Amino acid sequence: MRNLRLVLEYDGTDFAGWQRQPAARTVQEVVERAIGAMTHEPALLRGAGRTDAGVHARAQVASFRTASAIPCEGLRRGLNGTLPADVAVIAVDEVPADFDARRSARGKHYAYRIWNAPSRSPLRERFVWHLYRPLDLAAMTSAAAALLGEHDFSAFRAAGCDRKNPVRVLRRLDCVVEEPGLVAVHLEATAFLRSMARVIVGTLVEIGLGARPPGDAARLLALGDRTEAGRTAPARGLMLEQVSYEV
Amino acid sequence: MRNLRLVLEYDGTDFAGWQRQPAARTVQEVVERAIGAMTHEPALLRGAGRTDAGVHARAQVASFRTASAIPCEGLRRGLNGTLPADVAVIAVDEVPADFDARRSARGKHYAYRIWNAPSRSPLRERFVWHLYRPLDLAAMTSAAAALLGEHDFSAFRAAGCDRKNPVRVLRRLDCVVEEPGLVAVHLEATAFLRSMARVIVGTLVEIGLGARPPGDAARLLALGDRTEAGRTAPARGLMLEQVSYEV
Repeated sequence: MRNLRLVLEYDGTDFAGWQRQPAARTVQEVVERAIGAMTHEPALLRGAGRTDAGVHARAQVASFRTASAIPCEGLRRGLNGTLPADVAVIAVDEVPADFDARRSARGKHYAYRIWNAPSRSPLRERFVWHLYRPLDLAAMTSAAAALLGEHDFSAFRAAGCDRKNPVRVLRRLDCVVEEPGLVAVHLEATAFLRSMARVIVGTLVEIGLGARPPGDAARLLALGDRTEAGRTAPARGLMLEQVSYEV
Repeated sequence: MRNLRLVLEYDGTDFAGWQRQPAARTVQEVVERAIGAMTHEPALLRGAGRTDAGVHARAQVASFRTASAIPCEGLRRGLNGTLPADVAVIAVDEVPADFDARRSARGKHYAYRIWNAPSRSPLRERFVWHLYRPLDLAAMTSAAAALLGEHDFSAFRAAGCDRKNPVRVLRRLDCVVEEPGLVAVHLEATAFLRSMARVIVGTLVEIGLGARPPGDAARLLALGDRTEAGRTAPARGLMLEQVSYEV
């Protein structure tokens, strides 16, 4: 059996997220089906990040085992020929037998993009959250500093998150202007709790709009109560940018 | 009567172009209808560039006359509230009575984007032409130089173009790498013939792929025969970037 790693790019708009589920169009299922059609055996994909419905990926990583001898480059081309327009395979390579896209991941980089301008942007529509009131980036940056490092992120996860250990290490949380009107919040951690990136962004946005003081970030961490934190930012603005592995 | 100027941004994917036509969804018709609903009078929009079906605009300019007293800012907000997600009004201002978005335009800047990488890019899907074979940008740049300036562009227009005078002044024709894999061809002229930008790009691409020698650009200009030039590049890659006016 070969162990293969895929790098996938997708526009999450019309997907019910990464993870396979009954009666829904998911990235995992669409890609597994395309692999199965080429290898003539069922494929079971392990994805590094289980992106939610509507969340995008510039470089999701997934791995699967196969008895097929199709060369990596042939798989890449063949899959891109059959996959729908909103998902593509950027790279395929063979990895050691013990590689697992999820367990082996050492870090994930997400970016959340906000279109902060008076008018909507049709060209960016699928990939941003539009907020017309100007964000105070200095306040957001000051609040972000309190979230960096190792913390119990219980206040910043989905109500339905079932992870027993709510402690995570947030290595990066930057608010930057990528181009006029386009604000990006970059988040990096070894792993994230469910919806953690979007609850952090939702809270930072409330701080950026003056609805909360910057000190709220530290207060919420200490409190550990999800109901006190900000709203979950819409999925459309979130992009899985990169997954890192030990080399 | 006030004379108002609109700056419009749109994703052209689901439009049959700018210009109103029977039984087709066009940008002009959708925006005229939204204006009419606010002003309670029929609106007749004059657009600076009659973009083809599938062509996008970052800043199309259009003007119309109205008896309505609704302030510009109220119009901008109201229109964005009713227009569909793929078109928005970026700015509204009042202009002198003799301003006409089309006749007063002094220049138009189009950019044509090519995703030149082995795999398709789902995130850029709507706005690029995907070419997996590497383009020779030096050859394209050399060919582009021959097209700069005032020429009879008969070889580089749609078969159905009915303009009597085929002479245009091409002020800019640059091939640049905007980010890894993303090639942009920038074109500026006072006015363009029908499909001129896309026939120029289609021809430059054939040169960039080695299917034609760089000298073909000059040869085609001299020949003036559309059937000898390259294919018309797909609409999806073309963006009306800016329209300029005398200040």
